[in-house]
Amino acid sequence: MRKIYGIGVGPGDKELITLKGYNLIRSCDYVFLPSSRGNSLAGKIVSDYIVDKKVIEIEFPMGEDNEERYINACIKINESLSEGEVGVFLTLGDPMTYSTYLYLLLQLKKTELVVETIPGITSFNAVSSRLSLPLTLRDENFYLADGTLDEEILKRVDTVCVLKIIRNKLDIIDKLIKHGFDYVCVKRCTQENEAILYEKSEILEDEDYMSLIYARRK
Amino acid sequence: MRKIYGIGVGPGDKELITLKGYNLIRSCDYVFLPSSRGNSLAGKIVSDYIVDKKVIEIEFPMGEDNEERYINACIKINESLSEGEVGVFLTLGDPMTYSTYLYLLLQLKKTELVVETIPGITSFNAVSSRLSLPLTLRDENFYLADGTLDEEILKRVDTVCVLKIIRNKLDIIDKLIKHGFDYVCVKRCTQENEAILYEKSEILEDEDYMSLIYARRK
Repeated sequence: MRKIYGIGVGPGDKELITLKGYNLIRSCDYVFLPSSRGNSLAGKIVSDYIVDKKVIEIEFPMGEDNEERYINACIKINESLSEGEVGVFLTLGDPMTYSTYLYLLLQLKKTELVVETIPGITSFNAVSSRLSLPLTLRDENFYLADGTLDEEILKRVDTVCVLKIIRNKLDIIDKLIKHGFDYVCVKRCTQENEAILYEKSEILEDEDYMSLIYARRK
Repeated sequence: MRKIYGIGVGPGDKELITLKGYNLIRSCDYVFLPSSRGNSLAGKIVSDYIVDKKVIEIEFPMGEDNEERYINACIKINESLSEGEVGVFLTLGDPMTYSTYLYLLLQLKKTELVVETIPGITSFNAVSSRLSLPLTLRDENFYLADGTLDEEILKRVDTVCVLKIIRNKLDIIDKLIKHGFDYVCVKRCTQENEAILYEKSEILEDEDYMSLIYARRK
């Protein structure tokens, strides 16, 4: 058997990986790291845990997206693992939530590799703890979106998190205000350069692609 | 300073706690465990980690709910911790997501205790990995509810998770079918007695209060 684990390393704090993810990284034969122009945030988060491991970077350039890169990544993983070997593919946050791993997973499932996914702490769960504000109280509901907000949903929910806000910030904030939400923008939650932005003007000026907006009905 | 951490221990697998949560449990002075008639699932999950710790059970009987019990729990925690001591309050899944900790937190904030919350893996994140199905692909959205589903939201989302389905299963399933979702019920994901139910009839017969439904647009 040859096995590959998709592991969520959490939002940034190196201790917000699960024990399961940590133990698999420590015991595996190969660590596969997604990187963009030589940078890997997932790799940075677990850097203390992989110093003595065989690490293979897989290039996923930002902005570009086509099936071919997932096919090529899958070939690289498949060719690297010999019989009896175990690899881990690391991904920021949770592997099943807005992750490139989901597209790689579609390719991995076509191979003879055994695939298992280990969940990770999402950015929105981390933000909720960081702000000390509920994601959901009893009988409430939660809406997770990226980039755009649907007003019919907004009318009907208690808490909202929007990822990838950079594309569409003014529209997102205006809709949240219109429908009676308090909102806050959190940049790189639990990472070294974390920041919390409360003012509309500073949120609009922020250009970080890893910022999210947490909003809660007043 | 006296400090209390609210820690999510994850959905059931003892390795699905974060390294941060684990390290705080190992280093703290007191472990506070919510229990119902002497049973604590959070306590069971971390049982290997707390054998040598001072453990204080706090009774939260199922079904009953009033502010007084949170006030009393807060008093117990506040009275137990001396200057310089650290306590952890353990909670299943994530502390900010449908957790009794959220109500305790409101009381803790009124004291002089320093409070910090450590996120945990939610049941719905664990289910998504377990089923190897996305919570959200790029440009998709996600709707989290407990007990009831809003059809206007259902029309507009890609993935839905419903917790506490026991109150209202037939209505939930009928709405999911009506709006074009595939669905599956997962009982006690990553716990010893985990089960995955695919048939409507077996889901309706199931009486576990810790089952959730994961649904995805066809």
